[in-house]
Amino acid sequence: MRDEEKYTNTEEQLLYLQKLLDEEDTAALNELFNELDILAIARTLESFPAKTRDRLWEYIPEALLGEVLAEVDEDIRADYIEDLTASDVEQIVKGLDAQEVAEVLDVADEEIKTTVYASLDQEIRAQVENLYTYEEDMVGRYMDPETVNVKQGVSLEAVQRYIRIHHLLDDDSQQIMITDKDKRLLGTLTLIDLVKQPQESTVDEFMDDAPYTLNDQMKVSEAAALLRSKELPFVPVCNSDGLLVGQLNAADVLEITQDDADMTLKHMSGVSDEEEVFTPILRSAKSRGIWLGINLLTAFLAAFVIGQFEAVLDQIVALAILMPVVASMGGIAGSQTLTVVIRGLALGQIAGNNKQWLYNKELWVGMLNGLVWALVVGGISYLWFSDPLITLVITLAIFINMSLANMSGVLIPLVLKRLQIDPALSGAVILTTVTDVVGFLSFLGLATLIIL
Amino acid sequence: MRDEEKYTNTEEQLLYLQKLLDEEDTAALNELFNELDILAIARTLESFPAKTRDRLWEYIPEALLGEVLAEVDEDIRADYIEDLTASDVEQIVKGLDAQEVAEVLDVADEEIKTTVYASLDQEIRAQVENLYTYEEDMVGRYMDPETVNVKQGVSLEAVQRYIRIHHLLDDDSQQIMITDKDKRLLGTLTLIDLVKQPQESTVDEFMDDAPYTLNDQMKVSEAAALLRSKELPFVPVCNSDGLLVGQLNAADVLEITQDDADMTLKHMSGVSDEEEVFTPILRSAKSRGIWLGINLLTAFLAAFVIGQFEAVLDQIVALAILMPVVASMGGIAGSQTLTVVIRGLALGQIAGNNKQWLYNKELWVGMLNGLVWALVVGGISYLWFSDPLITLVITLAIFINMSLANMSGVLIPLVLKRLQIDPALSGAVILTTVTDVVGFLSFLGLATLIIL
Repeated sequence: MRDEEKYTNTEEQLLYLQKLLDEEDTAALNELFNELDILAIARTLESFPAKTRDRLWEYIPEALLGEVLAEVDEDIRADYIEDLTASDVEQIVKGLDAQEVAEVLDVADEEIKTTVYASLDQEIRAQVENLYTYEEDMVGRYMDPETVNVKQGVSLEAVQRYIRIHHLLDDDSQQIMITDKDKRLLGTLTLIDLVKQPQESTVDEFMDDAPYTLNDQMKVSEAAALLRSKELPFVPVCNSDGLLVGQLNAADVLEITQDDADMTLKHMSGVSDEEEVFTPILRSAKSRGIWLGINLLTAFLAAFVIGQFEAVLDQIVALAILMPVVASMGGIAGSQTLTVVIRGLALGQIAGNNKQWLYNKELWVGMLNGLVWALVVGGISYLWFSDPLITLVITLAIFINMSLANMSGVLIPLVLKRLQIDPALSGAVILTTVTDVVGFLSFLGLATLIIL
Repeated sequence: MRDEEKYTNTEEQLLYLQKLLDEEDTAALNELFNELDILAIARTLESFPAKTRDRLWEYIPEALLGEVLAEVDEDIRADYIEDLTASDVEQIVKGLDAQEVAEVLDVADEEIKTTVYASLDQEIRAQVENLYTYEEDMVGRYMDPETVNVKQGVSLEAVQRYIRIHHLLDDDSQQIMITDKDKRLLGTLTLIDLVKQPQESTVDEFMDDAPYTLNDQMKVSEAAALLRSKELPFVPVCNSDGLLVGQLNAADVLEITQDDADMTLKHMSGVSDEEEVFTPILRSAKSRGIWLGINLLTAFLAAFVIGQFEAVLDQIVALAILMPVVASMGGIAGSQTLTVVIRGLALGQIAGNNKQWLYNKELWVGMLNGLVWALVVGGISYLWFSDPLITLVITLAIFINMSLANMSGVLIPLVLKRLQIDPALSGAVILTTVTDVVGFLSFLGLATLIIL
């Protein structure tokens, strides 16, 4: 039985760590952190509120501090760096690679940044400088610039020897790049083929001569969609001149695609990208407040619509009772459609004729479910209020709202995408506004027409 | 310029394909499918409604049919298999590996299954049989059973030679397993070290002797959480006796973690796992209908609560107008909390003391935002209706509902998890019920107490 088995489950591991911390068992904590890898330490720190986390930092072996810092959430990194001097940071970034240095310096203030930057070794500094030429949401910021490049016509045996002599291949590298003298990418060779194929054959014989590549200026969210739909665990990155500038390996791809899936989920629920479980109270309250404010506008818009029908509401109280049912059914129907369409857009499945087909489909689904549930709601309302006119009004209103909800669920994300606005970000709010307004308008409007 | 560049973007590729199909350009379609890889063909088929898809099948090269069929969505596979005879299916599964055969046979009817099963070559049949010993949601079903195993003490050079002589290493394999004679896993060696390290050294010197492993009986959703939190692009799979039975490679890991992220998103919006953009109308309507029905129950529960306050509603129509604002603000606040907590649970960040901290945090965030937005809503209501009592009632109701919404956003998923129910699946519906009921109850209840 291996030692690790006492905490193979992340939840058990957290409990064990809390126990050690409560007992202030320094020896066991040091040992634990020495056994864990960088990622596990970072995830562990992210699993504690700021106060406990500050105590945990003390037990992390100094040699690992820089890498852990580069790996944790940006907020947590910024909190930690805040209290450090320039020479502390200089110490910490020693031995880090360019990507990690850039992550750490990103959150430091300008003064520390300049001092530490000047102290960097020349090669790393050049690489960091290069990373800073990309915007934060570009593929260039995520890529590993150190690829293993070989020329055409070289034998597999020679490539293997070359790798061993020059100590190439990082922990994460996965393919060999075949380039010409200008660093133009001619093909890629997997490590599998490098090992598996006859060693006297040349790289040309087994390379993929038309590998899928990404542009270094591409937005990470677009890259995520492509990587997801193509299930590529590795991809070379080229600049717009077609020259090889880096690679995304399996870990980068996992990170990019998962961040993207998380973001969709958060955006659809009105939570900002940065918020995590242990984001401090004030920061959480503030970032969520923005969404609550936007929602308030739409809620008052709905209230305003209701307000236009005071006369009928004043006369028939049953309308006030049934009103939320109309809005709620439309809201659910619309958000079902919205989710399916947003996923389809993310996977690049919606284009050309398909849009028309999809629109028709959702209209039919909306009308079909609208009809079924309108009749059910009508039936229940009749049993409750025994009023044929109210029954007629709510039946019609549910049908109208659910049909329109589904159409909006297709149209809103498509329009937002054309306007280059993230559909996940504002789609849900706009949709709720539509289903509330249409719901109240059709229900109370029909009531005014038919009953008053 | 490479040929592929005419459709590097999935959307452009779809448009190009639609054009070829409209022109019935058989030659170009054949050529296109021959150029695309299996995955791209599968994703393309999934991007069309059933009718167009049926036309596209005709143009797929026969040799690729089996692999494409194993790769596409289960629904699409079932639709295609439905019309085939046993001997068609026999033909199609020829040359597929065990995992692919299992996927195809899964959707065939019993008769075809038995006939095709009997026709399989012995080795594949044994592997398929083994896959069928796992439930559909277990890691064992997703793993690749063919690992490359070597003994301790062997030199890297010998491992490389062994691989070449026996033509080992699939396209997807990524690590070498070091096992004892019982197939107990002693360690793993990356291809990187196999290539990079001195070839005369033994596997023992560079193997990871405590690799993270998964149990073959583990649920895929739990595995997804672990793989995500540990960012493992490769993991060996062992059975409960500790013997090596397979591996999950980068592509499997991407698939598992992404399916899980997709599922969370779909569940939270009341969309079933299987629904895709191009799921046919009736199937979509039916699967969404279930969620609409559940929502209807909660909507009528809310209506019932409102119904208890007929007296006060009958007297003050402003209450009916403002009512939805209270429910809506609580709903948004609660779903923000719910999303953050569900993600935290998925990443295994919530355990022990952390739960108490998180509960307190969310209560504070709820009260803080509750206070701020209650005052804003109160102010707007006063400007609108100039009634101090209504203003008091809505201010209190918003504060109460938002505070309770945040507490429910923590408690509901934690309770569901303890009951072993997926929090993403039912959390949103239960939460909406709570925020609606609490919202209407507090608003109309306070109105009855204070105003009547």
